[in-house]
Amino acid sequence: MTGGIPRTVAEELDAADPLAEFRKRFVISDPELIYLDGNSLGRLPADTPDLLRAVVEEGWGGGLVRSWERWIDWGARLGDRLAEHVLGARPGEVVVSDSTSVNLYKLAGAALGAAPGRGTVLIDAEDFPTNRYVMQGLADQRGLRLRRLPSDLDGGLDLDVLRSALDEDVALVVLSLVSYRSGALVDMARVNELARSVGTRVLWDLSHAAGVVPVDLAADGADLAVGCTYKYLNGGPGSPAFLYVRRALQSRLRQPVWGWFGQREQFRMGPDYDPVPGIERFLVSTPPLLSLAAIEPALALVEEAGVARIRAKGLRLGRLADDLADAWLTPLGFRAASPRPPERRGAHLSLRHPDAWRICRALAADAKVVCDYRVPDRLRIGPSPLYTRFTEVWDALSRIREVAAEGTYVSRPADLARVT
Amino acid sequence: MTGGIPRTVAEELDAADPLAEFRKRFVISDPELIYLDGNSLGRLPADTPDLLRAVVEEGWGGGLVRSWERWIDWGARLGDRLAEHVLGARPGEVVVSDSTSVNLYKLAGAALGAAPGRGTVLIDAEDFPTNRYVMQGLADQRGLRLRRLPSDLDGGLDLDVLRSALDEDVALVVLSLVSYRSGALVDMARVNELARSVGTRVLWDLSHAAGVVPVDLAADGADLAVGCTYKYLNGGPGSPAFLYVRRALQSRLRQPVWGWFGQREQFRMGPDYDPVPGIERFLVSTPPLLSLAAIEPALALVEEAGVARIRAKGLRLGRLADDLADAWLTPLGFRAASPRPPERRGAHLSLRHPDAWRICRALAADAKVVCDYRVPDRLRIGPSPLYTRFTEVWDALSRIREVAAEGTYVSRPADLARVT
Repeated sequence: MTGGIPRTVAEELDAADPLAEFRKRFVISDPELIYLDGNSLGRLPADTPDLLRAVVEEGWGGGLVRSWERWIDWGARLGDRLAEHVLGARPGEVVVSDSTSVNLYKLAGAALGAAPGRGTVLIDAEDFPTNRYVMQGLADQRGLRLRRLPSDLDGGLDLDVLRSALDEDVALVVLSLVSYRSGALVDMARVNELARSVGTRVLWDLSHAAGVVPVDLAADGADLAVGCTYKYLNGGPGSPAFLYVRRALQSRLRQPVWGWFGQREQFRMGPDYDPVPGIERFLVSTPPLLSLAAIEPALALVEEAGVARIRAKGLRLGRLADDLADAWLTPLGFRAASPRPPERRGAHLSLRHPDAWRICRALAADAKVVCDYRVPDRLRIGPSPLYTRFTEVWDALSRIREVAAEGTYVSRPADLARVT
Repeated sequence: MTGGIPRTVAEELDAADPLAEFRKRFVISDPELIYLDGNSLGRLPADTPDLLRAVVEEGWGGGLVRSWERWIDWGARLGDRLAEHVLGARPGEVVVSDSTSVNLYKLAGAALGAAPGRGTVLIDAEDFPTNRYVMQGLADQRGLRLRRLPSDLDGGLDLDVLRSALDEDVALVVLSLVSYRSGALVDMARVNELARSVGTRVLWDLSHAAGVVPVDLAADGADLAVGCTYKYLNGGPGSPAFLYVRRALQSRLRQPVWGWFGQREQFRMGPDYDPVPGIERFLVSTPPLLSLAAIEPALALVEEAGVARIRAKGLRLGRLADDLADAWLTPLGFRAASPRPPERRGAHLSLRHPDAWRICRALAADAKVVCDYRVPDRLRIGPSPLYTRFTEVWDALSRIREVAAEGTYVSRPADLARVT
């Protein structure tokens, strides 16, 4: 054992893990490497290379353009599966297309267009950059006031802050369900209710929640959401994002990018844009099919495991990480930078340390631990319950302790490389 | 022989074809199938499956999130290669990202923002639907007048029509270099010059030209362009599109979708959007990497063959198709629906026939010829010089003649399926 929590505790958790077998369904090229960055890019599912080979060689190579007859509604089919198994939405309310940022732009643009006379957009001042920038752009273009709600870097948005900012002038609220940095989890039902009380809408970013935190868009009264598929959904680098629009709202919203994939009788190619009434009106154009296809086998794993079981394991992984951080890392100058207990956050957690960036680089280079860094001083640790073992969390925290204690990381360059 | 032009003519052209060997660099799963729809989805290059396997298994599976250090500027690197070998642009003027429609929206939005006080947008009334719809949307959102220039379905836009519509009120002109339906080729240098004379800009869609028609954006004075990579560039289904902005214009334009991939010091994640000065300010977010990667081996083939040689063969293929159509199909009720000679168009041509849709379906089902249909009555034939043989054009036209002469196609359903 090392410190207060013996490795056998983690071994026992692994032995009792009902999801343990799922690790074998992923490609683990280097069993020595501890990968705690599934919140950035999820691992490669073992079934994905074969599916992609079939799509490339049989679909593209053999079927050629004729394959589009099967492919053209793939984004809608994946959307229906996400709706049922991951998002708590109904068929025809979710579709996969474009990127999270582009989907955010489309839905925010649509929502603002449906809120004439309201002049304020609310965002979380600490939200993921692209969300802030996209909304800054829309506010600028439409002459709206962008109001940035102050938020706790470690604890997330205080609902009292939101409540006091909500009034009849608010056209739209944009929030992440799980904070990209601290992991803080927002009470979606409560926020939607607060927004409804002043007649406004919330556009949710579910990127750090989808597939790892139970989401029930219907029950929680959500109107609009977007999210990414390459984190806990393991869809692959840059796989297309999803978007959700509550059915009753769909025909009332018109998104700003009037592409031909939203057009009624698309192949009639008529003179005027006339979007379909359903969710496909939020599509723009031909999807990047290879990246789209890779979502399918990945989503099948999440469906098979079930988000409730994934969440249950995520909470146990989080608790172990909290306990180990308290025992080993607090004495070395680290501070918890995420809400506790784990029920108050998504699956990842952050630790503050003045040298977080150099420690992160040293871990990857010298200790075979991949986690990530977020400005200004956060080491972000993202276990992914479908494939992360409890012993990996134990070993990783132990290696972080070693690297921090030895202090050799200080020789690493302090400049920030360009890495997602 | 059959009719006036013996098959030996085509055989001799194949024997003398300097690009003949390139056909072997593509996957030809079914040698019986004649594929004349490379203008919709280009064939699979033989090197692509291995590259994709490496990106998936080594890059994603093995490298995991660390691979983004190599991947993150892939769109810019492909852009530089397209600039040099395909588009006649300079390094740092082209980048690959998003879809053609989204890129059109971004660049048109940027251009309109830089033309205050001008109230009219000009489009070709017969341009590809998504171009018309995107511009209709932007005009609607910005209170501009959308003026649709009447255009000849078979001959393309008359420059006199454009000239008489150009005045100081025009904020932007959007045109396709090669018409998606007739293949009509526009004189880019002349159009840019006309636009400049009234102080306005042209946004070019190069989708049906890139890789098959020599394009020289710098010499022809182009300001803005977008285009697709899955037609003659063979990048695969829905592969990301390119965009071009002349360097001197870049820092003066601000596109409407303010995503974090355009941000200066992206990973500082600062509070305000502050785009880089260069071409990457037109990026939005994480690219769909698998679909992006597939462009690389495909582009290498175009570079190796050279667009000038591709064009030379394209003209010969087009001339053979014209001659065969005159000899065999005109007597059966077909009419040429593309400009002649082939120098006046891109690589594809269209033929009018009242039953074009059913003939197209019958060709695919009974005659192993894949070409495509465009409303209202066009059979579109798209030889792709990198892999289409002269004998394939001969055989295809011969089979079209048989199908049309036998008349059995009339039993096929007349309703339009949803196919790209």
